[in-house]
Formats: sequence, structure tokens, C-alpha cells
Amino acid sequence: MTHWWQSLLENIHPPQPVWAEKAAVRQASLVKPPGSLGRLETLAARIAAIQATETPQSRPRAIVVFCADHGICAEGVNAFPTRITHQHLHNFIGGGAAIAVLARLTGSELVICDVGIDADVSHMSGIRHSKVRRGTRNFAHEPAMTPEECDAALHAGYTTVSELRQRGIRAVAIGEMGIGNTTAAAAVTAALTGKPPELVTGRGSGLSPEGVAHKADVIRHALERHRLRPDAPYDILVNVGGLDLAAMCGAFLGCAAEGLIAVADGYVSTAAAAVAVALAPAAREFMVFGHRSAEPGHQVLLDLLGVTPLLQLDLCLGEASGAALAFSILDAACSLHVGMVTFAEAQMG
Amino acid sequence: MTHWWQSLLENIHPPQPVWAEKAAVRQASLVKPPGSLGRLETLAARIAAIQATETPQSRPRAIVVFCADHGICAEGVNAFPTRITHQHLHNFIGGGAAIAVLARLTGSELVICDVGIDADVSHMSGIRHSKVRRGTRNFAHEPAMTPEECDAALHAGYTTVSELRQRGIRAVAIGEMGIGNTTAAAAVTAALTGKPPELVTGRGSGLSPEGVAHKADVIRHALERHRLRPDAPYDILVNVGGLDLAAMCGAFLGCAAEGLIAVADGYVSTAAAAVAVALAPAAREFMVFGHRSAEPGHQVLLDLLGVTPLLQLDLCLGEASGAALAFSILDAACSLHVGMVTFAEAQMG
Repeated sequence: MTHWWQSLLENIHPPQPVWAEKAAVRQASLVKPPGSLGRLETLAARIAAIQATETPQSRPRAIVVFCADHGICAEGVNAFPTRITHQHLHNFIGGGAAIAVLARLTGSELVICDVGIDADVSHMSGIRHSKVRRGTRNFAHEPAMTPEECDAALHAGYTTVSELRQRGIRAVAIGEMGIGNTTAAAAVTAALTGKPPELVTGRGSGLSPEGVAHKADVIRHALERHRLRPDAPYDILVNVGGLDLAAMCGAFLGCAAEGLIAVADGYVSTAAAAVAVALAPAAREFMVFGHRSAEPGHQVLLDLLGVTPLLQLDLCLGEASGAALAFSILDAACSLHVGMVTFAEAQMG
Repeated sequence: MTHWWQSLLENIHPPQPVWAEKAAVRQASLVKPPGSLGRLETLAARIAAIQATETPQSRPRAIVVFCADHGICAEGVNAFPTRITHQHLHNFIGGGAAIAVLARLTGSELVICDVGIDADVSHMSGIRHSKVRRGTRNFAHEPAMTPEECDAALHAGYTTVSELRQRGIRAVAIGEMGIGNTTAAAAVTAALTGKPPELVTGRGSGLSPEGVAHKADVIRHALERHRLRPDAPYDILVNVGGLDLAAMCGAFLGCAAEGLIAVADGYVSTAAAAVAVALAPAAREFMVFGHRSAEPGHQVLLDLLGVTPLLQLDLCLGEASGAALAFSILDAACSLHVGMVTFAEAQMG
């Protein structure tokens, strides 16, 4: 089978090192002890490299939340009923959801994209309608998606960020909303890393310890059924991923292909990012990891990718909330890089 | 000897628990899994308690940087020459220093307060002139300050935040600038905690390993000379502190007495905060710790206080830069607390 995204992968290349080198030279010239801005210095250099510029910028920017339901919820792996996914959509549009508050606070465009909610929301305005299917299939019994469904979801993610790029957006926080998606993230993580499911399975939106053990059992049985190899990331995504994970994966690949900063959120977002990196290793250079989730599997993925998130505030909400919080750190890194004076300008020494 | 600040200590009381309790009830009602906003939930409750309100706010706010020189620099404990303190003042006023950039970015009033720069800066505008003395005394040979000098510096810090309070400021980032102040912070930390100097002495603005060892030796000899007790925090401040540390200590006490959020910065700021807490334990309830410094002694102080900073980005600059970065986390905590809708309002469940 030929996939539309194979040509996309060919367009993903690491940023040219010259811009990061120029940025490091400038950082060393600013009125502060060398290295005293810590990770803000390397972050500014990363952004300069991604944008191929001497004046890295964190605006204008957007937050993209891909929404989908998950058939795996039929196995009783969730603390909340699945109707919450559909109901919560109204809080995104109405402005009362956490991410809507953070979008206003951080001056970010908020894009809510339906790729697989198990309800007809076609009448709702304020939503990007890219529904592939009403709900991801139950991967306990069949592949989570057909290849065609997976490719459509990847495409929805790619076109979302590609259109943002055309409108001048420079940074995109990439997150999700949908009851059941930490189960898919844990299955993807176990399959990608070979770790046992119980090590990467957490409380999600509030499971009891018994609930977590059951969730890990469901994942273990599903992985036994699908027989996935760690070096086959697309097969992993198709079989135990989800429509939201596939869309996020397409968004991460799109950011890399088009030179946008992709800010990953927590566990589910990072699982999609890890699939993207497995498909195109250079995509990692365009990613910033916003927040270390309280979900135990997140650290396993961060270790796999060799990255450290900017923030650790014990959030485990999703909705791109941790990524949106990290925008303020990007702002500081860029503002300091561009706005501070050099020792020479200050006639100091 | 009677001190002016003894009456100030009597005005420091813990916030009433009712406001934190109300805040926790509201957090549990918001459209998210319980606890999923992690430390943002407890932070919002802390701020609500400090402000005795159901609508915690992080604005308007100010960043206060207390500037002083340190006689201990004569012992060769610094990577930079002491004239930098005076020179760098111009970058604060001119807007090219890191904290000036962060003040603009975060919409914070920037107050630069001279309490002990070893130069005549009385002609400079844009500075709060509270100079106690040209430079802290060299605590290798004599007490860092006389009690009168220390009390004057404490008063300068207190009046700075008290006047901000009168103008409606609700949160204050408290930091410092002055070559040599990590040596004073390390001496204060060793004296307060009983830890050996080599465990709490770091690179400051860029010492070599040999330089760090020498700096620790200087501190050890000074502590042997002054014979300080861990339970005598004022004596510690007078003998091995500094004019900037004393002013910051007064600012922390002032925030506690007047119900302001005091955001501590890195090592030097936290050393002043630790003295304030030793003088008035309830003062800790008004403090938020912005950033974990790369200086090794900082963790020793954080353990003593039993607190965890909001950020860890490997900064070691001072200037209140880590505290200013944390303002965006306070913004998020307050905005989410006030701006999200409840499950009842959203008619969900």
C-alpha cells in the first residue's frame, strides 16, 4: 500500500546548524554570565534554528486540540463516561474549558478539530470538522483503524498545521481530548518501547488502583492479539492508536516539514510525537516538550526520545494544557534573546 | 537593643484557612478530572488564602531588585570584577538587562533599589535610592553590617513593598543584583543549616573548581570567626549577610505583614527568605518559590523550608529572573481558577 504521507516524510530535514551556532554566539555576548539563562539559551537557539533566523519568535501561535472517542472504552478502562467527550466540546467553544482559558491568557488561536467524536457534531460552529469515523475502533477486538482511516486522520492533522502555517502561525501546541485516549497512548508506548503494559499504564482521568490493573490487562491482551514490532511505528498507530493520536502524529510531521515549532503536551501527545519521530527522526528537532505529565508512561517516552520537558507541575489533564503553559517559557527565551543588550553595546567589561 | 522590625513580626499571621478551603471546593467543581491541574490547583488556593478572596489575582505586580556590593569580594571569591554591579545598573534603567526584558514581557513594574552599591549613583533617575552604605563590609574580617546598618536595609526592603501595596500591587518578585552575593548567601545557608560550606558553595557567576574551593575556604574561616548559632537568624544576617540580603528579608517580611504574594527567586533571594521565615515562621505561607537555581546550596535551603519551586530551567542569573518567569504560572493558576466553568454550569455529568 502506498500512503500519502510517504512524500511528506521526504520533506523533513534537520534545521541547518548555522542558525543555532549564530544564536549561541549572541547568547555568549549578552549582559549576563555565560550560560546563566540555562535552558532558555538552548531553547532560543532551537527556535532560531527551526525558524532559520537571528530573531526567533514565539508568536503568532495556535493551540490545536484533536478530539476523538475510543472503542476501547467498551472494556471498562475509564473513570468517566464516554459522553463526556461530546459534552466537553461545548466547553471548548463556550470558553469555559481549561484550554480555552489558557488560549485567552497566552494570546493563542484555539483550533478544535473533530477527527472522531462518537456523535454528530456537524452542526456545531467554531469547530474544524475533519471527522474520519464516529469513534476509534475497539482495539481489543480489531485494529483501532483501517489504514485508510489512519491515513485520513494523519492528513487531517497535517492540513490543520499546514493551513496555520499559511496564515503566519509560527508555533503550535498539539494536544487532544477524548475519553479513553490514555489507554491508546499506553498501548502505543508499550508497543514502541517493549516495556510491559503495567509500567506505562496510569490513572488517566481518575481510575482506582484496581482500575489501572484492569486497564493494563486489557492492553496486554490487545498487544498479544496484534503482535506488533517496535520498529513498525505505522502498524502500531493503526492497530492500537486512535484517530486523535494519528491526527496529532500528522500535525507533528506537518510542523517538521513546514518549519513550525511543535509544542508537545503530555502523555497522549508525546505518544503521537514518538510515532512521528519513529517515522521521521529529524521531526524531533522541531519539537519542544511542554510538560512532564503525572502519568507514569510519559517518562518512558521522554527517555525514548531523549528529551526533558520545560515544565513539571503535576498536571494530567490533556487538552494541550501543559503545552500552552510552556508558551510563556518560549516567550521568555525569544524575548531575552532578541531584547537583551550585549556587553559591547553596554560598553561593559 | 530594640529593633524597629520587632513590631513588624507581631503583624505576621498565617492566612485564614477558610479561603483555601473555599478554593479547593471550587477546584473540585470545575470541568476537569479532580486534581488534574496539579500544582496549579494548590497554587490558586494559596493565592486565594493570601488575598482572602474567592477570586485570586496575580496582577498588578512588581519586580523588586535590591542592589549592593560586597566587601567579601576583596578575598577573591568572584569571577567578575565588582565594578560590574554599578555598570549593570545602567542596563536595568536602559531596558537591556534580562530582568528589564522580563518585566516588559510579563507586564510587571520594575523597581530597582540601591541599598549598597559601592559607587555614588545618587544622580541616577529611575532608581529607588535607599543606600545604607557603599558596600557591605568584608565579613572575613568584621561583621557584614552593624545592627544599625542591617536594620536600615531591612527597613528599605519593608518600605519598598509597603509602598507597592498602597498602590495596589498584589504580587512582588524579590531578587537582587551585586557581585559577591552568592558568597554571602552560602555563608548564611551554612550558618542557618549547619551544613559544611563546601556543600552549599557554588560557581556564582562563573568560578573555576579551584575558585569554588577557595570561596568555600573563605566562608569556613569567616564562620569560625563569627561563631554563629543556627537559631539566631538576625545575628547570622548581620554578621555574614549583606545589604541586599537584609533588604530582601525586609521585603519578604513586609509582604507577609501586608498580605502580598512574595515570589522568591534563586539562591540569594531564598537565603533572605529563609532568614525571614526563621524570624517569623508564618511568613513562609506568603511565599511562592519561583525557580530552582543551578547553585547547589539552593536545594539545601529549599529542603530547610520544605518547599518546591515552580520552575527548574537551570538559570543561575539572579536579578529576580526566575521569580519573574514564575509570574506566568501564577497567571495560569489564577485565570483557570476564576475563568473555568463548573460541571453544574456546563450541565455535564
